[in-house]
Amino acid sequence: MADDVNITRVNLAERSYDIEIGSGNLAGLAAFLRQRTKSSHAVIVTDTNVDALYADRLGDELTEHGWEVHLLVAEAGEASKCADIAIDLWETMLDEGTDRQSIVLAIGGGVVGDLAGFVAATFARGLQFFQIPTTLLAQVDSSVGGKVGINLPGAKNMVGAFWQPEGVLIDVEVLTTLPDREYRAGLAEVVKYGVILDAQFFASLEADVDAINGKDPSALQNIIQRCCRLKAVVVEADERETSGLRAVLNYGHTYAHAFEAAGNYGDMLHGEAVSIGMMCAARLARIMERIDDEFVTRQFNLLEALKLPTETPGYDGEELVALMRRDKKVDDGQLRFVLPTKMGHVELVKDVHVEDVLASLVS
Amino acid sequence: MADDVNITRVNLAERSYDIEIGSGNLAGLAAFLRQRTKSSHAVIVTDTNVDALYADRLGDELTEHGWEVHLLVAEAGEASKCADIAIDLWETMLDEGTDRQSIVLAIGGGVVGDLAGFVAATFARGLQFFQIPTTLLAQVDSSVGGKVGINLPGAKNMVGAFWQPEGVLIDVEVLTTLPDREYRAGLAEVVKYGVILDAQFFASLEADVDAINGKDPSALQNIIQRCCRLKAVVVEADERETSGLRAVLNYGHTYAHAFEAAGNYGDMLHGEAVSIGMMCAARLARIMERIDDEFVTRQFNLLEALKLPTETPGYDGEELVALMRRDKKVDDGQLRFVLPTKMGHVELVKDVHVEDVLASLVS
Repeated sequence: MADDVNITRVNLAERSYDIEIGSGNLAGLAAFLRQRTKSSHAVIVTDTNVDALYADRLGDELTEHGWEVHLLVAEAGEASKCADIAIDLWETMLDEGTDRQSIVLAIGGGVVGDLAGFVAATFARGLQFFQIPTTLLAQVDSSVGGKVGINLPGAKNMVGAFWQPEGVLIDVEVLTTLPDREYRAGLAEVVKYGVILDAQFFASLEADVDAINGKDPSALQNIIQRCCRLKAVVVEADERETSGLRAVLNYGHTYAHAFEAAGNYGDMLHGEAVSIGMMCAARLARIMERIDDEFVTRQFNLLEALKLPTETPGYDGEELVALMRRDKKVDDGQLRFVLPTKMGHVELVKDVHVEDVLASLVS
Repeated sequence: MADDVNITRVNLAERSYDIEIGSGNLAGLAAFLRQRTKSSHAVIVTDTNVDALYADRLGDELTEHGWEVHLLVAEAGEASKCADIAIDLWETMLDEGTDRQSIVLAIGGGVVGDLAGFVAATFARGLQFFQIPTTLLAQVDSSVGGKVGINLPGAKNMVGAFWQPEGVLIDVEVLTTLPDREYRAGLAEVVKYGVILDAQFFASLEADVDAINGKDPSALQNIIQRCCRLKAVVVEADERETSGLRAVLNYGHTYAHAFEAAGNYGDMLHGEAVSIGMMCAARLARIMERIDDEFVTRQFNLLEALKLPTETPGYDGEELVALMRRDKKVDDGQLRFVLPTKMGHVELVKDVHVEDVLASLVS
């Protein structure tokens, strides 16, 4: 238990923090925190799913280690990532004596991490923040990099901050309680890292399909560590999304956001939309003669082997293009895509023709 | 007009920004912005008082210079510095097409600046922010330093961020429309800078009482410039209130916050509470034999000459001490005060006896 944890260090301009990745290492949470903060008051933010599975028990363990703990439980689901819930959390924290010496601990998936991080970034102008991601998607993506925030009606992540954690603790054992569909959705982002940054990693995923599908802890630890390191490299180089480098992480996401919006965020999980979006992006790159057929086939085969959806949903193509033009990352309605030139390398491409985008939607 | 502007540069770890101080220089706003941003979309946040006086006209001038302008007007008064109004602003900004390339312009006093700054810090994870303070208090204090935020019920400034402006434009001519009582309240913070950091400045205020009471533009320009430079020195050394240096700015404020809270923020203006609080702090320092009688008398005479209140209001002393113990800046309920040792120099003093605090309240 927790003997073989790996530490990935994220080095930022102002400070650094650790991502600890292990199997069963949740049991070492109190020690992990004690090495990184002088605080003895923890506000745990979680959701109704994760509370019963992990958060309640972890809170008790911290109490046994001398912490004063307050457990704040939001309703599970994206709807909790909103201003009204943030206000609830702020006011409850105030009532419970939270001050500048308190820490905020997010235990949950991306919604919990984003919401808790936003509250941590803004309460008393910023509290120390720790992430304990409990979904694969949060472990390989949202818990690293410091993007926190809430949604406005009709606009995801429209209000937020860059607020880096003091530490991230990842335990692959929690994935045993994750619904299979959510586990697979997380794998879409794993595949993405291979395509955009690391051809060798992509090849290792192809070789390890059986272990990944079987949720082998050792394989998972390796995969998550590689993804966190790759994300850290990008975040270290472009912490606040100013240089443009961070945009490579959006491979497949212009399409994915359009699919999610067209389905009112009810039809598919984010990772599923990303899987389909990566197929569209690969086809667009093929149409523009940036890659060959083999690239498209390899990506398709890996996503299929990991049982991810690859077929474009039946939304109207013109509607999807209109949604892409409204994407937060679009300048002046100009269509921009992150497209591969070879396995492990992508570029930001502007001036893409609408007809090519429409053609790329056809799976 | 605007020929004799002074520029005070605030040099921070990550970047610098200018405070331009002049008389009539509001007319140069478009050029001031153009030198500091590539944006052409400005969200102006103001209040119902300042809208008719300045903001509406300035918005028109920016429009004439090719800007797309959206004017958001909050009800004048501290009650607008709350989460519900922040949500209104976020949603209105979204509806009006605000994106990462937009800027937020605060035109008003401290409430407008804090509210607009918080919205700027959080919309799309942070927009460029400019301050045009229209009260003396905001010109010498809240518009410089990057503290932005909103109140929670029963807790002022409990939610917020450090979000430095890209530029601050100060026009002393706007003080001609400021109610006299608010003008005098701002002078309390001016006197504070002399006491805590600059004996020579304190002496110059003593010499210039008539010009100050007459709102002489040239005297005001000099005073505001000196205050902004002094505040910049403190902020440059302790941008995020981590080293403790920034605490010197709280001279008189532990008392002032207690007076304001005891009166439910309705009895006196912040600057008035600071004036009385500085007298209490000076008496406390005298009781503790850190300064002599002459110091107390000089400070009293200057505040009186500037027609500021100096007499402690009739709240119960024990109640005030209890409120001081709940102050946001207090550690573990321990009473801490910023106290002078000589004119132009203060220190943070811990372990103060309650009986001395009670005695210091007696004016």
